[in-house]
Amino acid sequence: MKPYVVGIDIGGTNTVFGIVDARGQVLASDSIKTMKYVDFDDYVEELHKELSRLIKANDMDDKIQGIGIGAPNGNYYTGEIVNPPNLPWGPRIPLAEKVSKAFGGIPVAVTNDANAAALGEMTYGAARGMKDFIMITLGTGVGSGIVINGQLVYGSDGFAGELGHVIVKRNNGRICGCGRTGCLEAYCSATGVARTAREFMEIRKEPSLLRDLPVEEITSKDVYDAAVAGDKISKEIFEYTGTILGEAFADMIAFSSPQAIILFGGLAKSGDILLKPIREALDKNVFPIFRGKTKILLSELKESDAAVLGASALGWEAKYRYEAKVPVAEEADPQPAPEAKA
Amino acid sequence: MKPYVVGIDIGGTNTVFGIVDARGQVLASDSIKTMKYVDFDDYVEELHKELSRLIKANDMDDKIQGIGIGAPNGNYYTGEIVNPPNLPWGPRIPLAEKVSKAFGGIPVAVTNDANAAALGEMTYGAARGMKDFIMITLGTGVGSGIVINGQLVYGSDGFAGELGHVIVKRNNGRICGCGRTGCLEAYCSATGVARTAREFMEIRKEPSLLRDLPVEEITSKDVYDAAVAGDKISKEIFEYTGTILGEAFADMIAFSSPQAIILFGGLAKSGDILLKPIREALDKNVFPIFRGKTKILLSELKESDAAVLGASALGWEAKYRYEAKVPVAEEADPQPAPEAKA
Repeated sequence: MKPYVVGIDIGGTNTVFGIVDARGQVLASDSIKTMKYVDFDDYVEELHKELSRLIKANDMDDKIQGIGIGAPNGNYYTGEIVNPPNLPWGPRIPLAEKVSKAFGGIPVAVTNDANAAALGEMTYGAARGMKDFIMITLGTGVGSGIVINGQLVYGSDGFAGELGHVIVKRNNGRICGCGRTGCLEAYCSATGVARTAREFMEIRKEPSLLRDLPVEEITSKDVYDAAVAGDKISKEIFEYTGTILGEAFADMIAFSSPQAIILFGGLAKSGDILLKPIREALDKNVFPIFRGKTKILLSELKESDAAVLGASALGWEAKYRYEAKVPVAEEADPQPAPEAKA
Repeated sequence: MKPYVVGIDIGGTNTVFGIVDARGQVLASDSIKTMKYVDFDDYVEELHKELSRLIKANDMDDKIQGIGIGAPNGNYYTGEIVNPPNLPWGPRIPLAEKVSKAFGGIPVAVTNDANAAALGEMTYGAARGMKDFIMITLGTGVGSGIVINGQLVYGSDGFAGELGHVIVKRNNGRICGCGRTGCLEAYCSATGVARTAREFMEIRKEPSLLRDLPVEEITSKDVYDAAVAGDKISKEIFEYTGTILGEAFADMIAFSSPQAIILFGGLAKSGDILLKPIREALDKNVFPIFRGKTKILLSELKESDAAVLGASALGWEAKYRYEAKVPVAEEADPQPAPEAKA
């Protein structure tokens, strides 16, 4: 019997799930609206209903070996979501426990979305065969998943790898969503690029295609389109962004000397317009002993499948199993946290 | 038969070596002058002679299980020293091979001095039982050894963990010995503190005990002594240094979320005068989810023993063994590099 796993990607808007085989084929997938369910138990019930339907429709009832879930602030050690910025279910959500319980004890593993992306890349994508690499997701925010010695880095508390929040500007840095100032994310996320565009529009006097747009509505996609159309300021915005990324990457390389830094997410699709300044700034700033060693690569996963694939990669090593206790005590006695794993 | 290992610490001036038991007792130690030998083979011959004498004198001829060596730019994967800044033996020195050969095939392992310090701390010191920590050595330079999941981080090329060379000042940073500008080492090494003192003496007008000294001769020890004596500017120099360290530590924590950052080396002995500003800057700058989690600790190894202990800790896992080939081919056919190890 061929084994399969389920990958679930919980985003602020949609929860996408799919059934994946050992070669990384997404055999079937579907989604539900995340925000429709104010109560977490209702959400899990709906997820269970729709995912069960998908499993049954594909005749895979007894073939699912594990479920991997990528979720914002998902914690690998505890199986919880902790203080998620965009989910309504409270500060500590026992995700692995509830999902495993709903599915009769199937093993479940949880991590954050960037870590899931790194696992997906290592299992099915550009990082196959690599033991040391860093995944950087350039989306609404900047996330990261770090692999060292072939293992994802979870750190002492399960939250390691927040490279979107290293400080790239010590003085007069932009305010970041995390409450601090000068974070990489405040400059190099899609939102950061839009902020740079607004700053450049204010400070610079040259004409620009971007001036045709209401300044508050400029998006990173607008900047990309204008740059491709030859707009000088827009090209400079990408140079500014890429330079900051390349400088930050130089410091990351001083930490773990990875074979590659792999970019994923909307901004990563900008191609050379972003990659060129990244590589130039990296080469200029990297510690001499590491020069020319770390490749800057783009994710090889199809974007529509990547989130599910990444989460599913975790399904192969899922260990947490909900086991029912004596019913009388069940409500009064909270379930123990899943075992911490090395 | 109780097993023992040998630790060798190769410094620019002295090479210290000792015999260590499984509990971290240095049973006997001695040293030779590193720089006395312009030819590497002469150096190894002298090292072999003196270390053999020590082993024999302690009746441990067949009890040495392995030899661990800490050396500047020592590479764990290849067993070589590569482009060492302060050694006269050329750009690629086959250290593990030559030492193993001299000792008739005893297993040898090599790493850099900061990594050796981290291993020593994990095996015998403040990091016993820790699986995730960062060792920072504050000496003439700033070095680091990173442990994740209980393993030292060597990276893709064996040189990972150069945290003395993350950039702490992006614009108008000080020139660093590595040829770049703004490195942590240029500010927070003993030499960096002395440079800060010279800058402060120039810029500031207040009286200071440091003004009694020729400005070019001020050392970090002078600054420490003056600060302890109540000198205001000297205390500010330590605040300045500690703040930069605390800010840099916040970024390191975003990478690997360690249980502790452990300080070693001359400057680390400054105590609260340095630790207080480090902790304050760390607390102010760390990403909220990590706040209060990472301890700042001092090394627990006796300084006179630490280098040998750290290197010896590597001896327990030494794998490289020189094996003699057919004599005729020996000179013409260079030895293969030791096996890369995970």
